[in-house]
Amino acid sequence: MSIDHASFTIIRDYKAKPARVFAAHAREDAKRTWFVDAEGWETAEYSLDFRPHGWEIWRGRYQGGPEIRNNTLYLDIVENARIILAYEMFAGDARLSASLLTITFAAHGGGTRLTLTEQGAYLDGGDGARNREIGSRELLEALAKAVDG
Amino acid sequence: MSIDHASFTIIRDYKAKPARVFAAHAREDAKRTWFVDAEGWETAEYSLDFRPHGWEIWRGRYQGGPEIRNNTLYLDIVENARIILAYEMFAGDARLSASLLTITFAAHGGGTRLTLTEQGAYLDGGDGARNREIGSRELLEALAKAVDG
Repeated sequence: MSIDHASFTIIRDYKAKPARVFAAHAREDAKRTWFVDAEGWETAEYSLDFRPHGWEIWRGRYQGGPEIRNNTLYLDIVENARIILAYEMFAGDARLSASLLTITFAAHGGGTRLTLTEQGAYLDGGDGARNREIGSRELLEALAKAVDG
Repeated sequence: MSIDHASFTIIRDYKAKPARVFAAHAREDAKRTWFVDAEGWETAEYSLDFRPHGWEIWRGRYQGGPEIRNNTLYLDIVENARIILAYEMFAGDARLSASLLTITFAAHGGGTRLTLTEQGAYLDGGDGARNREIGSRELLEALAKAVDG
């Protein structure tokens, strides 16, 4: 039962304004376009209740693998500026991780500087934190396609 | 709006067995004895729903100061071995922090080695992480009085 505690920060600039980048996290239809239907993934369930103590639920599979579940609890929301949430991931019945995620949105060069910090407990005994950082960077690239075209 | 991301780990050994130290976290009556009614604190509300996705709610004041609120969501519970939770603290309407907390209980020298790791986002602009570590050490001392007598 080893636990790897780790954290990473990613900074990514967008051409879109903070209100638009924030909305892509806050509105279910907008978030679906970059967060839910990534290539190779098949989504079985998705719902977003974007408010403090509201849940985001995602369940699906990657290329026929085990069911992955992602449960997110929103803790702190500052409109157009900040989101803090806790989330957990499972593969089948096995817990992969529990994490605290801080995302800030700041006006920068006519667009937005997004700063994401994940602090996590990774339980899979593998390269959890490193893989999570790679996955997070991919999501932020998908977000760029959604908001910057 | 500065955010201080930090983490700390505390290791504390107890004479009591893991089942007893774990029960002091899991049972509302047992947790009240060391967590709720600390010296100088006046508790206005306390409840514990100890299960994954259950909440622990605490609300009170320290020596007539602003109302402090502590909301805990349990994420992962492995009987007598591990607890992972997310919690947030407020002073009045101001958010002080959001944190991920991992607590493990391991048999050690006839008793228990408890390892607590907090990974937090501290928002008060002050000495949040350092003060949290001090407060956590005090709580673990109070726990020692409860389980080791």
